[in-house]
Amino acid sequence: MLDDIASCSDGRPGVTRLPFTSEHHRAAAIIKGWMEETGLAVHMDAAGTIIGRREGVADGPTLLFGSHQDSVRNGGKYDGIMGVLLPILALREIKNLSLPFSVQVMAFADEEGVRFPTALIGSRALAGSFDPSALELKDQDGISIHDAMVEFGLRPDGIESLDLRNRSIIGYVETHIEQGPVLDNENVPLGVVTAIAGIERHHISLRGIAGHAGTTPMRGRQDPLTCAAEFLLAAERIASETPDLIATIGKLNVLPNAVNVIPGEVSMILEIRSAVDRVREQGGKSIINEMREIAAGRAIDFTCRKTYTQRAVPCDAKLKNLLKKAVYSSHYEAKELPSGATHDASAMADLCPIAMLFVRCHGGISHTPEELAEEADMQEAVNCLVNFLKLLK
Amino acid sequence: MLDDIASCSDGRPGVTRLPFTSEHHRAAAIIKGWMEETGLAVHMDAAGTIIGRREGVADGPTLLFGSHQDSVRNGGKYDGIMGVLLPILALREIKNLSLPFSVQVMAFADEEGVRFPTALIGSRALAGSFDPSALELKDQDGISIHDAMVEFGLRPDGIESLDLRNRSIIGYVETHIEQGPVLDNENVPLGVVTAIAGIERHHISLRGIAGHAGTTPMRGRQDPLTCAAEFLLAAERIASETPDLIATIGKLNVLPNAVNVIPGEVSMILEIRSAVDRVREQGGKSIINEMREIAAGRAIDFTCRKTYTQRAVPCDAKLKNLLKKAVYSSHYEAKELPSGATHDASAMADLCPIAMLFVRCHGGISHTPEELAEEADMQEAVNCLVNFLKLLK
Repeated sequence: MLDDIASCSDGRPGVTRLPFTSEHHRAAAIIKGWMEETGLAVHMDAAGTIIGRREGVADGPTLLFGSHQDSVRNGGKYDGIMGVLLPILALREIKNLSLPFSVQVMAFADEEGVRFPTALIGSRALAGSFDPSALELKDQDGISIHDAMVEFGLRPDGIESLDLRNRSIIGYVETHIEQGPVLDNENVPLGVVTAIAGIERHHISLRGIAGHAGTTPMRGRQDPLTCAAEFLLAAERIASETPDLIATIGKLNVLPNAVNVIPGEVSMILEIRSAVDRVREQGGKSIINEMREIAAGRAIDFTCRKTYTQRAVPCDAKLKNLLKKAVYSSHYEAKELPSGATHDASAMADLCPIAMLFVRCHGGISHTPEELAEEADMQEAVNCLVNFLKLLK
Repeated sequence: MLDDIASCSDGRPGVTRLPFTSEHHRAAAIIKGWMEETGLAVHMDAAGTIIGRREGVADGPTLLFGSHQDSVRNGGKYDGIMGVLLPILALREIKNLSLPFSVQVMAFADEEGVRFPTALIGSRALAGSFDPSALELKDQDGISIHDAMVEFGLRPDGIESLDLRNRSIIGYVETHIEQGPVLDNENVPLGVVTAIAGIERHHISLRGIAGHAGTTPMRGRQDPLTCAAEFLLAAERIASETPDLIATIGKLNVLPNAVNVIPGEVSMILEIRSAVDRVREQGGKSIINEMREIAAGRAIDFTCRKTYTQRAVPCDAKLKNLLKKAVYSSHYEAKELPSGATHDASAMADLCPIAMLFVRCHGGISHTPEELAEEADMQEAVNCLVNFLKLLK
């Protein structure tokens, strides 16, 4: 089924399925088919989310499952779409079991934020946190979200009415590949997420004195790149020594970046993540304080500006424990771990309790055509979701 | 006089005077005027070098002075052209003194190599090391050196006959701003060059494993950028601890260079310079050996390819000592220092003994409009050249 929907892709290698495109249309038809064969009532909402609903008792609450249909460019077959398929398969297995709540499975249009400079449109719409001014944001061809949605057959002015905040929602449970190596390294098929990590980013700028690489003696150089080298190692060391802290410098630019010129300027972005906000905040301070001292010792002009903060989103204790119990029903223990990546569940946390089930992915890699989750592991996830529904009942 | 010729520039700020352009034409007319007022016989050779000659005794040897007329883009008023002017001024001061040798002052067309992807055309022509196939090299507008020279009024097929290797040449003495901070830091107006440093460059490539910055724990990362950070600090430390060794990493590129991706690949160029070839070679080996160990310890794939080698050019002991004595005649000691930069003297070393006189430049900066040599220091240099001519006599 995942191979089938992977063919809804704009080019190879891997899967490229951006929101509000013809690939999205084709994928929507397949997802609709999966849902209808499962006996769900299907519609697409004004934000482009495909929703399949199984009614429970009248006026009862609703449990939400889901993930996103879109991919990055040249991404894999599992990220997102697997979290739409597996709850559908779980519902197939308990077609005849009556539940005291309704169940909805949702395929959000856009989580990756690849086509437009925003993301989480569908989940934010449900959580009442979608900012309508984002509809004017444009893709690289100059097409706005608004126009792309209209062209896709949607009525964007209906987004406001999607807000579910006054409805009775049990929670939102998202199934997703881990996108990291923890489960693979520990040889465990499933993990239960404790929290979605918070993120902060700092734009760091270092100014030294550019000079001729041949005529400037080593002593007295004010080289911002060797200063940045000390920064990199300080960030790596502090994050390695601090439990639950991750620090990455993935972007670094050198000016003038010429063979025979001592650089005059280096800019870089420090990203810090932790599932515990206090750990992130203290870790960030420690790293930046050490950077400030290193720069001062090298007579390098140092500026640092926090450009982004996203608080950690804890998973709901009750739902998390039910998921763990559901995994345990399959005779092994689920690994608890944080999610370093953002998901639709991040936005859904503004609406209702959330929980996430992680499926092991090979080597921890994702966002590439090599992304792989084993069929047996996915079957374990379906079993877990079935157990979860029974336990919740 | 330098202000005057600085006006022969293609745009501001600073001086932009590329070879075989209308600015070169205008500068040539001014240089010709300086030379003629000094009583020199002037011509332009087939490589575009302006030559002013004062005849000594018949069949006697010739002493060569000179430097280049061209500048980098938005460069300064001193680099190159000052080394044409000061020997002319020295010859003015000894107009009536008879010398047992002829003296030539030369303004080479192109030393910087900014317009075409080659340099040292005029000095190589004299040293017999000019490769005629270089005439086909093109500037960014697609104009070849050959065509630019013809357009300028030269006959490039005459370059071959410029070879001075069977003539009696005493040596080549080049006066130049230091382009480094040594004289300025030591508060000395003049320096005498020991050797022009040798250079080697290594292209270094590091491959690790790219990963999601949020989902990959610190432990087990194979981050080529933190590995490169250790490289940078190792090169800096070894060069700082080794006398006469300079190591610079001025160019470094990160892939994919994204905020939230642990880099997969880093490439950089390590440049090593020393006036002593053995020091350069051993220093390069030490640095690369340490890099290899660092990469192995981090499970990073390391490749290193030497892309460029230029041997050091020692200055002639006799000429160097005469220059020192000439400086000392002005009642202070000249500082001996290597030249980290390449000069026309590098090419002239293939023809004859060379020596270089460095003039202090403010802050050690060059190749910018702020480049500055003090008038008093330049007068000291003229005095030194006058003394030198008298001592050589």
